[in-house]
Amino acid sequence: MNYRPSVRVVDATLRDGGLVNDFRFSDEFVDALYKTNIAAGVDYMEFGYKADKTMFDVNSFGKWKFCDDDDIRAVVGDKNNDLKVAVMADAGRCNYKQDIQERSNSPIDLIRVATYIHQMPTAIQMIEDAKKKGYEVSCNIMAVSTAQESDVQTALDMLGQSPVDCVYIVDSYGSLYPEQIQRLAEFYKNATEKYGKVLGIHAHNNQQLAFANTIEAVADGVDWLDATYGSMGRGAGNCSMELLLGFLKNPKYDLLPVLKFIETYTAKLKDEGVVWGYDLQYMITGLLNQHPRTAIAFTKDKRIDFSNFYNETVNHE
Amino acid sequence: MNYRPSVRVVDATLRDGGLVNDFRFSDEFVDALYKTNIAAGVDYMEFGYKADKTMFDVNSFGKWKFCDDDDIRAVVGDKNNDLKVAVMADAGRCNYKQDIQERSNSPIDLIRVATYIHQMPTAIQMIEDAKKKGYEVSCNIMAVSTAQESDVQTALDMLGQSPVDCVYIVDSYGSLYPEQIQRLAEFYKNATEKYGKVLGIHAHNNQQLAFANTIEAVADGVDWLDATYGSMGRGAGNCSMELLLGFLKNPKYDLLPVLKFIETYTAKLKDEGVVWGYDLQYMITGLLNQHPRTAIAFTKDKRIDFSNFYNETVNHE
Repeated sequence: MNYRPSVRVVDATLRDGGLVNDFRFSDEFVDALYKTNIAAGVDYMEFGYKADKTMFDVNSFGKWKFCDDDDIRAVVGDKNNDLKVAVMADAGRCNYKQDIQERSNSPIDLIRVATYIHQMPTAIQMIEDAKKKGYEVSCNIMAVSTAQESDVQTALDMLGQSPVDCVYIVDSYGSLYPEQIQRLAEFYKNATEKYGKVLGIHAHNNQQLAFANTIEAVADGVDWLDATYGSMGRGAGNCSMELLLGFLKNPKYDLLPVLKFIETYTAKLKDEGVVWGYDLQYMITGLLNQHPRTAIAFTKDKRIDFSNFYNETVNHE
Repeated sequence: MNYRPSVRVVDATLRDGGLVNDFRFSDEFVDALYKTNIAAGVDYMEFGYKADKTMFDVNSFGKWKFCDDDDIRAVVGDKNNDLKVAVMADAGRCNYKQDIQERSNSPIDLIRVATYIHQMPTAIQMIEDAKKKGYEVSCNIMAVSTAQESDVQTALDMLGQSPVDCVYIVDSYGSLYPEQIQRLAEFYKNATEKYGKVLGIHAHNNQQLAFANTIEAVADGVDWLDATYGSMGRGAGNCSMELLLGFLKNPKYDLLPVLKFIETYTAKLKDEGVVWGYDLQYMITGLLNQHPRTAIAFTKDKRIDFSNFYNETVNHE
């Protein structure tokens, strides 16, 4: 019945959810989401990516792929509240030196650097740059379920010695079971606790375990918890905000505004044909520890021959 | 990577799934499900209830509400395979003395007695009757999440001293978290292991934890695992057969026929308008540890005003 005051809830709806609608959210949606996060006591709201405009065509995506400071400012105004603003910066896909301003000139509070293991040196430079500019900084090491343990150890050592504030356990493929989350949390903690880093978790719902893995991580001492409204996110989606706030006992969190938002805005997205959430094709790629791209294509083609997809996917290994 | 040979998978699709379509399955559906369970290596197939025909109108339900031996025999024939046949008998709602035959004259292998705590004396009589007739017998103590621990202890003592083979942990309201399953499994084991009973688990998916709770139970030494195809079952449904067989490492289990069945038969049921599965109304009753009946009514009324439902449900406490 008790709660841990160090827990932080991070709303990743616009960022991970943006991956299923090319970030084309209406201004009304974003505005309502911001107000809802404040009302619900959510700690951070991730607005999207700081993607490099020389790599991605601005006409092919909504504005939250790029998160111009002015676009964020139009939503958050003077920020007279406790909700902090986050954006994600992908290693190798963000022109961070130019596109990330000094924090004192920006509405952003937290830079979330996302990296694959092999890009760690780039990620460290991005972390140092963001820290120097005054931001809180977290780092997502993606796809650890396919990485060698010794490489993860090296990455964690690098992060430990970097100025990053929080290191995320990321189940990119939705392939991990709670007992594996427990082991990873211990592994991450052993490597980073001595440097004073906190841990975070970002889960995917391929095997209907995003929420279960997130609350397992809470029990293992992980503090920063990613969730999305209605579990909106790539493929099978993420840990549901509504499940997470229902579970957390910190009185600052309030489920009711979240339910109101979902019935008003998330339901409408689904009605408009935006598709995400648990389904067998995502279960299959999760089970086989593969990137969901084949399952996303299967979904796009409106296929339901799951048994053929399973055979294709197994035989492709 | 290892597996426990004592694990048994119980397909409860017709029984718990029957609660959402009044047991009106086509003969083709049942026949295909039986063949699929054999192909998938499933250990038990529960056909439905042995409901008392003096209490329930046979015209208001499909035949699997009553599971006449002849109806089962029409599906299983001479049973030249390893798949065992189960039926559920509710304490107080089954005319067991008359409707459950001697096993030697019946296609049924396992009688699953389901009981609320206050009906335990009736349940014990049913267990003794079934055992005397030659059956394997299991017992589901329903709604333990709202029972007093001392009452559960008494029920477990009674079951320990009864001839029952397996005692089920049942999360009727889908309200339990994995850490609670772990504690319950230890509690049940302490009470029944000395009598040589095995444990089972029957989970509901109100908080997207049916699968997570089932695999937690496996890790805690629970052997009999209920699952349903496509998680078909009352309200938010049950642990998915496809997720469970994907997780279990016993080479006897095969996921492919399960996927084929779902894409052919389960999908068709959904297309015909049969409704089950995780949704916010079920999350709310699960979170509040309540019977899902109000959520089922909400679903039937095609309401989506989850925030009102939450207020109604909280205020009703």
